[in-house]
This record gives sequence, structure tokens and C-alpha cells, in this order.
Amino acid sequence: MAIAFAGERGSFSELAAVEFFGGKQKPVPVQEFHNVFTAVASEEIKYGIVPIENSMAGSIHQNYDLLLENDLHIWGEVYLRVSHCLIANKGVSKKDIKTVYSHPQALAQCKKYLASMKKTEPFPVSNTARGVRKIKEEKLNDAAAIASMQAAIDYNMQILSKRIEDYKFNTTRFLILSKNYRKKIPAKDNTKTSIVFTTKDIPGALFKSLSVFALRDINLLKIESRPLQGKNFEYLFYLDFEGKSDSEAQRNAINHLQEITSFLRILGSYPTGELKHPEYRKRI
Amino acid sequence: MAIAFAGERGSFSELAAVEFFGGKQKPVPVQEFHNVFTAVASEEIKYGIVPIENSMAGSIHQNYDLLLENDLHIWGEVYLRVSHCLIANKGVSKKDIKTVYSHPQALAQCKKYLASMKKTEPFPVSNTARGVRKIKEEKLNDAAAIASMQAAIDYNMQILSKRIEDYKFNTTRFLILSKNYRKKIPAKDNTKTSIVFTTKDIPGALFKSLSVFALRDINLLKIESRPLQGKNFEYLFYLDFEGKSDSEAQRNAINHLQEITSFLRILGSYPTGELKHPEYRKRI
Repeated sequence: MAIAFAGERGSFSELAAVEFFGGKQKPVPVQEFHNVFTAVASEEIKYGIVPIENSMAGSIHQNYDLLLENDLHIWGEVYLRVSHCLIANKGVSKKDIKTVYSHPQALAQCKKYLASMKKTEPFPVSNTARGVRKIKEEKLNDAAAIASMQAAIDYNMQILSKRIEDYKFNTTRFLILSKNYRKKIPAKDNTKTSIVFTTKDIPGALFKSLSVFALRDINLLKIESRPLQGKNFEYLFYLDFEGKSDSEAQRNAINHLQEITSFLRILGSYPTGELKHPEYRKRI
Repeated sequence: MAIAFAGERGSFSELAAVEFFGGKQKPVPVQEFHNVFTAVASEEIKYGIVPIENSMAGSIHQNYDLLLENDLHIWGEVYLRVSHCLIANKGVSKKDIKTVYSHPQALAQCKKYLASMKKTEPFPVSNTARGVRKIKEEKLNDAAAIASMQAAIDYNMQILSKRIEDYKFNTTRFLILSKNYRKKIPAKDNTKTSIVFTTKDIPGALFKSLSVFALRDINLLKIESRPLQGKNFEYLFYLDFEGKSDSEAQRNAINHLQEITSFLRILGSYPTGELKHPEYRKRI
């Protein structure tokens, strides 16, 4: 039993996998996000984990697209407080740094901090921990990486600064993926359901789509629009709402939505992750 | 009279600027997207142009964020058919190529083509034409760039392949920015209005927000959600709808929306750009 994550040891995806399963599933690194999806789709690895949105930098749109391209289900979600460190080889000091390697999302989460480092250029890499590995392996003495404290420990590197994220409650939401649709959810848990749909070419199509939830007092939690491939400026809508897809109101809402949309897929129902933050909005 | 664009000569933003103004405003290159916004905000340059969404790769979210951060207005929009070339130094053949430089959006638009080039790694740069300049200046003989035919001509480079975009109607929508709110729009033109708002913490908040348009038969054209900075998983909604902000129905809808939202800004009303495509959806 294992869970695939993209990147290297010490990546935030690995930390989130441990947070979710408490060590019961062994995290297995694969190269890129799409490899997480294919490893689970091919049943090579039982679960997968990918980041889906960050409270500062927004959605990881590539993973929304991969949700549609692969026939997988969402098994769960986990919110991880993401605190970044500026990491360098031993002996390197902050004033030597000309390049900072990290994932574009992490660079975006530390935008103000990076702006304060004069004469320093951000440089995108596909994974935060991979940036640490790069500067270590290539023995770069004029570069740093932005990654987790765990990545600094795993690679035995120097931490130049801690907590460099612009927003102190910086949090990333991860999705746990499975080949199977999750049927059993403990009755005590709050639940959410994720779907994806396209509207018909009718007046007020999106408004009518949201009405099927409003009419049944089902709270919406998130909406994300993505381009429909092969069409010009038509959109897919990814929607999260409260409740399980087989509860009466939710089932009726989905049936109603089916009538008025041209495509609809249920991505999964799963227990709502706990957001460790003093206050947050629970609906849109 | 000039228009700022991010990047180098031959970039798609420059081509779009020429398409929009027909050469009446001189395109002036600046470094990055945020420099376009500050050049216009400081009144150093009268207009600016930035890409906002592509029919395949989706929104350029950074520019949505910059629309909010800067006190500018949308003056117009233009849809540009985006056809990509694989460009290399003279004497380089396709089999030599190990790295392909381009903007992440262009790499995404040529994903299938890139997948067909074995042993080749995509590498992100901040602008398509800048990738061409890079391989020329650094005399790279194992690399190519993906950019416009114009960029290949401007830099006197070899075109290895043309029309390598995955979707033959690949189109990017650009926004023209101005310090001033556009008041005069020719009566014959179709018009759209762009706004940004946040909802109150009330049940069905987004549904109610869209209802102000549906009740008045105003077609919605696009919705984009972005994280609200300094909050955890609250969202800003960017909405495009048909008509001018000072027409009666639209003005009433905006007043109605103001009542039920916690923040609302009108980004501008402007003539609808012409989408040269056999068929496309006109509403969501």
C-alpha cells in the first residue's frame, strides 16, 4: 500500500501524504504530476497526492486538467500549512545569492521576500525539493532554493531564513486520488463533493447550473473555470459543494444539473479536510 | 502615443498591439507584465497590452492579479490567432535539439508536438521572443525556441517547423489597458464590461451575484476565480458580461450587485473583439 507524489523527498506533497495517512501508506516519489495520475490509473500505486490550490497563489490548473484527462476519483483532501525556508549550500551567505530556484507556486508565495533580495533572480523548477537537490548536486555557491525545512534536513543543507512566505497562514490544499469511487465515509465527518461540467448554449446557463444547489440550500465551496479543449473560449466548470453525492438533496441537485448541462462527471465525495486557521470562509 | 508590451520584438503581444491599433500607436517593449501595468499607471506610456487568456492553455492568472493591484482600466480587447514555429540557429537540425525554450503558455499550446520530439526537454522563459533571442545570443546548437514567425524573421533565424500548435484555431485574447475609463464607444459596436468582486458570507452568495445579470437577461461571457490575498480560501470573482456599464439594465445590475457584495470594481467597458473562428460560444 503506497501513495505516489511528484518530486523529491522533503517535498510538500510528501509531507501532506504523511499528514493525511499518518504513515500508513508509504510515500513513493515519481517525476511529475502526470506521473502521479498514471501510476494510480494503471493500479501500479494505490493512491496519489497532488496540490490543487494554495491560499495565496491560487489553483494549480494543470492538476485540474489532469483530473479530467484521467479516469480517477478524489478520495480525500488535506490542508497543509506551507512554510518556506531559503536554503543554500554550507558556507554560502545571503549576499552571495544571485539565483533562487523553486516551483513557480513557491516563488509566488514568497514574492515580497524575493523582492527584498536585491540583484536576485527567481528561477522556476518543477518541484521545491528538486531545487534543493539541484544546488547541492551542482555545488552552486551563488544560488539558493526555496523549499520545506524537511527538504533542508533531508539534503543536509544550510537554512538561511525561515518562514519567508508572504502570508503567515499560507496553506496548500492537496487532493488524494484513487482508482475507486469512495463509498464509505464516516457519518460524523463533514463531506464535500467535486464535479466537473460544461453548460449548454442557453441563456443564463451558469446561473441555472448554480441554481440547482441554491434551490436545495447546498453551499458551494469553490468554482474553477478551465478552457474546453478543441473549442474556442468555451469553459469547463469545476465545482465543489457540501455533502455526499448520494445524499437525497445532493443526488437530486446532480440529476437536475444533468438535465441542463452537456457534460457532467462526479469526481468524488470525501471528508472535508481540516483547515487550521483562526477564521476562514466556508462557502462562496 | 505608444503602447507598452512585455517582451521582445516579434512577441505575440506586439503583433496583437499592431492588430488592435493598426500601427497608430508605437509598440514599446518593456521587461515583464508588471512593467506594462506600471508604465501605464505612471502615465509614462499611454496604453498597455497583455495576454489574458488562451483558448487552449487558459487564463494568464498573473495578469488578472495585476488588474486588481493597479488602478487601470480595460480600454479594449483583441483576439489573435496564435501560430507557433519551432525556431533554431541556422545549420541546426531537428534531431540535434535537446531543449526547447518558450513561455510556459506556448509550451502548453504545443504539448502534443513537444511530446512527439523524443529526448527533448521544454524549458520555460518569460517571453516567446526572448527564447529566440537567447538561443541566438548564446549560439546554442542543441536548442530551439517556440515563437511567432515574426520573431524568427526579426532575429534572422531558421524555421524548422510551422503551425506546431496542437489546436489549429489556437487564439489568445489580449487586453488593452489605459489609465482612463473608456467613455465613448461607437454605438454600432458590440460591447462587454469586466468587473471584479468578492461575495459576502451569505448562503448562495455567488448564485445571487449571477442572478442580478440573469434577471435582466444580460449574458455572462466569462468567470474567473482568484484567491483573495490575506485570506484563506476566499475568492475574488472576475466577470465579463455583455453591454456597457452605463446602459440601463447593466447599471441596474451593477447597483444590485453592489448591495450584495463586499467589494466591487468596474474594470471597464469596451468593444467586443472579433473572434475569427468558424464557430464559438458567446455566453456562459
